[in-house]
Amino acid sequence: MKRIGMLTSGGDCQALNAAMRGVGKTLFNGKEDVEIYGFLDGYRGLIYGQFRMLTSSDFSGILTKGGTFLGSSRTPFKQIREPDENGLDKVAAMKQNYHKLQLDGLVILGGNGTHKTANLLREEGLNIITLPKTIDNDLWGTDMTFGFQSAVNIATEAIDCIHTTAASHGRVFIVEVMGHKVGFLTLNAGMAGGADIILIPEIPYDIDKVVKKIQERNDKGSRFTILAVAEGAISKEDAKLSKKEYKKKRAASNYPSVSYEIADEIQKRSGFEVRVTVPGHTQRGGSPCTYDRVLASRFGSEAAKLVLKGEYGYMVAYKNREIVKVPLEEVAGKLKMVDPESSIVKEAKMLGISFGD
Amino acid sequence: MKRIGMLTSGGDCQALNAAMRGVGKTLFNGKEDVEIYGFLDGYRGLIYGQFRMLTSSDFSGILTKGGTFLGSSRTPFKQIREPDENGLDKVAAMKQNYHKLQLDGLVILGGNGTHKTANLLREEGLNIITLPKTIDNDLWGTDMTFGFQSAVNIATEAIDCIHTTAASHGRVFIVEVMGHKVGFLTLNAGMAGGADIILIPEIPYDIDKVVKKIQERNDKGSRFTILAVAEGAISKEDAKLSKKEYKKKRAASNYPSVSYEIADEIQKRSGFEVRVTVPGHTQRGGSPCTYDRVLASRFGSEAAKLVLKGEYGYMVAYKNREIVKVPLEEVAGKLKMVDPESSIVKEAKMLGISFGD
Amino acid sequence: MKRIGMLTSGGDCQALNAAMRGVGKTLFNGKEDVEIYGFLDGYRGLIYGQFRMLTSSDFSGILTKGGTFLGSSRTPFKQIREPDENGLDKVAAMKQNYHKLQLDGLVILGGNGTHKTANLLREEGLNIITLPKTIDNDLWGTDMTFGFQSAVNIATEAIDCIHTTAASHGRVFIVEVMGHKVGFLTLNAGMAGGADIILIPEIPYDIDKVVKKIQERNDKGSRFTILAVAEGAISKEDAKLSKKEYKKKRAASNYPSVSYEIADEIQKRSGFEVRVTVPGHTQRGGSPCTYDRVLASRFGSEAAKLVLKGEYGYMVAYKNREIVKVPLEEVAGKLKMVDPESSIVKEAKMLGISFGD
Amino acid sequence: MKRIGMLTSGGDCQALNAAMRGVGKTLFNGKEDVEIYGFLDGYRGLIYGQFRMLTSSDFSGILTKGGTFLGSSRTPFKQIREPDENGLDKVAAMKQNYHKLQLDGLVILGGNGTHKTANLLREEGLNIITLPKTIDNDLWGTDMTFGFQSAVNIATEAIDCIHTTAASHGRVFIVEVMGHKVGFLTLNAGMAGGADIILIPEIPYDIDKVVKKIQERNDKGSRFTILAVAEGAISKEDAKLSKKEYKKKRAASNYPSVSYEIADEIQKRSGFEVRVTVPGHTQRGGSPCTYDRVLASRFGSEAAKLVLKGEYGYMVAYKNREIVKVPLEEVAGKLKMVDPESSIVKEAKMLGISFGD
Repeated sequence: MKRIGMLTSGGDCQALNAAMRGVGKTLFNGKEDVEIYGFLDGYRGLIYGQFRMLTSSDFSGILTKGGTFLGSSRTPFKQIREPDENGLDKVAAMKQNYHKLQLDGLVILGGNGTHKTANLLREEGLNIITLPKTIDNDLWGTDMTFGFQSAVNIATEAIDCIHTTAASHGRVFIVEVMGHKVGFLTLNAGMAGGADIILIPEIPYDIDKVVKKIQERNDKGSRFTILAVAEGAISKEDAKLSKKEYKKKRAASNYPSVSYEIADEIQKRSGFEVRVTVPGHTQRGGSPCTYDRVLASRFGSEAAKLVLKGEYGYMVAYKNREIVKVPLEEVAGKLKMVDPESSIVKEAKMLGISFGD
Repeated sequence: MKRIGMLTSGGDCQALNAAMRGVGKTLFNGKEDVEIYGFLDGYRGLIYGQFRMLTSSDFSGILTKGGTFLGSSRTPFKQIREPDENGLDKVAAMKQNYHKLQLDGLVILGGNGTHKTANLLREEGLNIITLPKTIDNDLWGTDMTFGFQSAVNIATEAIDCIHTTAASHGRVFIVEVMGHKVGFLTLNAGMAGGADIILIPEIPYDIDKVVKKIQERNDKGSRFTILAVAEGAISKEDAKLSKKEYKKKRAASNYPSVSYEIADEIQKRSGFEVRVTVPGHTQRGGSPCTYDRVLASRFGSEAAKLVLKGEYGYMVAYKNREIVKVPLEEVAGKLKMVDPESSIVKEAKMLGISFGD
Repeated sequence: MKRIGMLTSGGDCQALNAAMRGVGKTLFNGKEDVEIYGFLDGYRGLIYGQFRMLTSSDFSGILTKGGTFLGSSRTPFKQIREPDENGLDKVAAMKQNYHKLQLDGLVILGGNGTHKTANLLREEGLNIITLPKTIDNDLWGTDMTFGFQSAVNIATEAIDCIHTTAASHGRVFIVEVMGHKVGFLTLNAGMAGGADIILIPEIPYDIDKVVKKIQERNDKGSRFTILAVAEGAISKEDAKLSKKEYKKKRAASNYPSVSYEIADEIQKRSGFEVRVTVPGHTQRGGSPCTYDRVLASRFGSEAAKLVLKGEYGYMVAYKNREIVKVPLEEVAGKLKMVDPESSIVKEAKMLGISFGD
Repeated sequence: MKRIGMLTSGGDCQALNAAMRGVGKTLFNGKEDVEIYGFLDGYRGLIYGQFRMLTSSDFSGILTKGGTFLGSSRTPFKQIREPDENGLDKVAAMKQNYHKLQLDGLVILGGNGTHKTANLLREEGLNIITLPKTIDNDLWGTDMTFGFQSAVNIATEAIDCIHTTAASHGRVFIVEVMGHKVGFLTLNAGMAGGADIILIPEIPYDIDKVVKKIQERNDKGSRFTILAVAEGAISKEDAKLSKKEYKKKRAASNYPSVSYEIADEIQKRSGFEVRVTVPGHTQRGGSPCTYDRVLASRFGSEAAKLVLKGEYGYMVAYKNREIVKVPLEEVAGKLKMVDPESSIVKEAKMLGISFGD
């Protein structure tokens, strides 16, 4: 008999339920008896011992459902190592609850922050398997995370909708896409939506080049220009600032986000009317796309296989179309970013897309 | 032989192309020879004589396309009656271009502002037929406008996406829906998306009742609350202000829109974390839904029939499932609003939805 | 305290859950205490006493879910009045179970067949309220049924997909749309999808006119033609046969459905390659569209209001944009059909669509 | 100056326009002057000299459009080498037209059949670059073809719709997915749609094991079972027949396709009611999904790069997330199939999916 814990942590994304279904179905389909304990609201449930035993009906009918039936919470790594308001040692509490339930292993679904804590728990001696979940696709060690393709779909739908309006009115439109540090989502949604300009954190922009591109389009008779701008888009000047200085500068700004500032800059320099659209949290929600459903199911299934074999300390990953395992210690805390010299960026440029660089 | 002009004016919406296709196909399918002249970018094209002759291929393959192939512009009624920067009398110019092209009639697709100008042109002796286009469904004299149902779909998709995120994290979410003066869009999207609270201009809200509803839900174990808030939602106090005073107050506020202010108020009073999502202009864009495609095609067809019969001075309208004609003078300048005592509002309340009143 | 039964009967459709949610939420939100008993699999549950008590959590999270959480079954009216294989009198059994549970009323969601049985139960003295559910929109007494608009969407999506293939290859395509007796679904999907020819049961077709239309399109340079054909489309000759003769003729035919026969006829007479696509049962499934979610919620809410007021013997109906009640005896057994002289058919013809008549 | 020809051949699929847009935009964005000639309806246009010169406006606004704006045709490889009805040598004609237009190269978008002919033209001395297009993802030498993911989406939507109906009525449903020789599409749509049984050409099935799985589900209380069945699904007995014998057997059968036969077999052996749904050609149509838009754009861009560099004789391919070139002679005529021992099949089995083997 095996006793396995499971939790979802961090910002939610599509296909979390599909991935847990993959884990649950595979565990219950195995030859060995398995008990699965679901911790509620991420690490919080593990810290405070909030959980319930899951049955096969918990994993039925959830393949296409957004969100996570276990709930989630954002518990920053920094906070994890600090005592709570009652002085509770969170890491010790997690270990205690793990052992109290006599768990053989713990399956954790999450993104970058989640993986740091997961690795900490591994170092503390717990048997951990993780699944790479994030709409940002910024986890080191895997070609793809689930949630990403679904988020690309939603961001692109926004660009598609804006396209018809922009074309009818002859305007400049900015669609702000999620991604504070990493631009995969913006890059892919921008290419899929036919954006003319794509601004991402990895490629600082020169506002004059952005304006020049818009003017060139206008001179050629294109009535409109669409920009896909990542939340973390940054100008060349700002990129020279220290992290702290930049944070200070942004906090002092009146703009709700960088897109509004870019809009203003363009308007000032070119006279073109610029509108901003922010799909925001919708990018994390809704039913997972088919790509994510398959990927998450496969991840879940292979994670369960590792559990059944007793191979712990790994993140399941997607590499070269296969699901593989990578040591948790190698991926925790590492960010995968868009390489400005990568072929997809070059291809986008060949298509005529400007990155403002 | 008949010579007919056509233009689309005001904020674009879905099914404008479908409606024009309906007009064009019906005109070209008639027994009489017809020439159709499309004016570019709304009234602007009529004022400055920018047009092109349309052929049957212009109307092919556009049924499912968003936007308007003729382009549009917002030309406020007030501006229409003022001379342009070169002293040109716009109304006179429109009449002149109409007569120069020897038009028998002019088909105008637009919303409330557009209809005021259309009626002015009618008073000036031009033969006018209009089609009711707007995502707000706020045109007097018709049960339904095209664009509305497509916009409901997009706003509801946003609520659907937010639902899964809100449920996973246990948060309060505001989805801001288009509609500065009228709440049909918010009301329908809110009901379709299962919003818990709906705030619309026609029903001023009491922030304490809004907060109470959220707390009640929380007390019953509902981890999240979703609010569908119209751009023009207004509190009971603000509703007592004069239009001018309110405008001033809003302008002085730092909030990009009223939703952000409501979010802050809720957070302050309840301690709940509140997030705001603004689908914005996406609500006007994208491919029209099937309902709008059929409705717009029917409108277009009947508008063309009136043209062929030489019956002018009407808006085509949808009443009791039939397309009828209503005199332009009766509808121009009148706003259709949500009646707080209407059965749909009562039904929403029976379902447990709070309007904050 | 009120005790209310509920069941869904007949072929399933979208928004059944949304409608039941409307009933349940309104009943539980009322001042009176209410117990709701859900019978499983339609009348079968009522006959054999299979039910469970429903709580407010049964009605939570089901607004967007297809199908019916109570299950359904097709129990033809004819069979209802016959004893079952064990000699059980079904009508007596239903009455007995109704009284055994001391029900105050019974809410029934269904289509034409369902309504006949519902009316029979009313005649037998039970307190009945019904909701008009069907993808066919063929229920007498209501402008609209829920399920219809969602089915139009799915059938139209099929036509949309076929459009691009047909255009690329220059072929004739038939999309077979559900509807054995009534053509509303085919008519609306055909208009929304831009079909060139629409064949429905109410307007018998002349195959020569169908072929002529295809040839005319070809002569004008249109590479493709799309036909939206109802399952119950019928030729002018066959329309002269008695129901019995026609049934015999169809049974003797080798064609899986009438569309395949029409395809063959076209191919023989014109030489054009014809392909048939049958979306089939997908038209009943999937998440309800926003229009149906609102409509079904409103129906449910008003049905519950009647129950709370003790007004029985009615079907809730949609008339002139309001939810009203119509006496069950007036609607049971009556079919609403497409009027060949109705304005929507005329408008379709003005758009150039052929009905083969 | 470069003169480049382009054509699309074989069954159409999504993202053909997106791919051509990628080629066109990149060619026109290059430093060198380029003329692009589009041949109409596949090889037919090259054979009979039907073409038109393409301008940059041909590549504008087509990113999201299904089909191919150049038209396509299926011209089997066998027929290509035979003279036409007027005795015309097709291969010679193609070469002649290529040289007459003084083309520097020819860009061909197509699937397996198309690649055989493309390779023949290469052997005949023409400068060829190909792009891998097919909903089947069965082209050797590339991890992924464009069209595949869009087709997965459509097939999965059908399964999703069927799911709600099947669950409501407690039935067995077969969804027939495209793929006569290869099962990638069925496998992925089946996994994404949560099918219980997946039957593909590469894994011959035992009907008794299929029935056993259905009965097991029924015994456990699952009211329904969904099968995703490829057009080319084959039983273990039939897999032993020679190709010729099997073809003969199928031709003698009265079933429109193998799914109907499987449905009958299940019904006979188990007594369960089985329904068949055939999404058919809809799987090739409609707007490309975001994944395909990005992939096709990248393919197009890299194909253009090869053309500009004068590197011919290659198919562009997707390998390990990069776009690479593979020699045409290595891929032409080779089929990529599902490996029954591949990890994705094993993962599907761990999830509890039966392949009937």
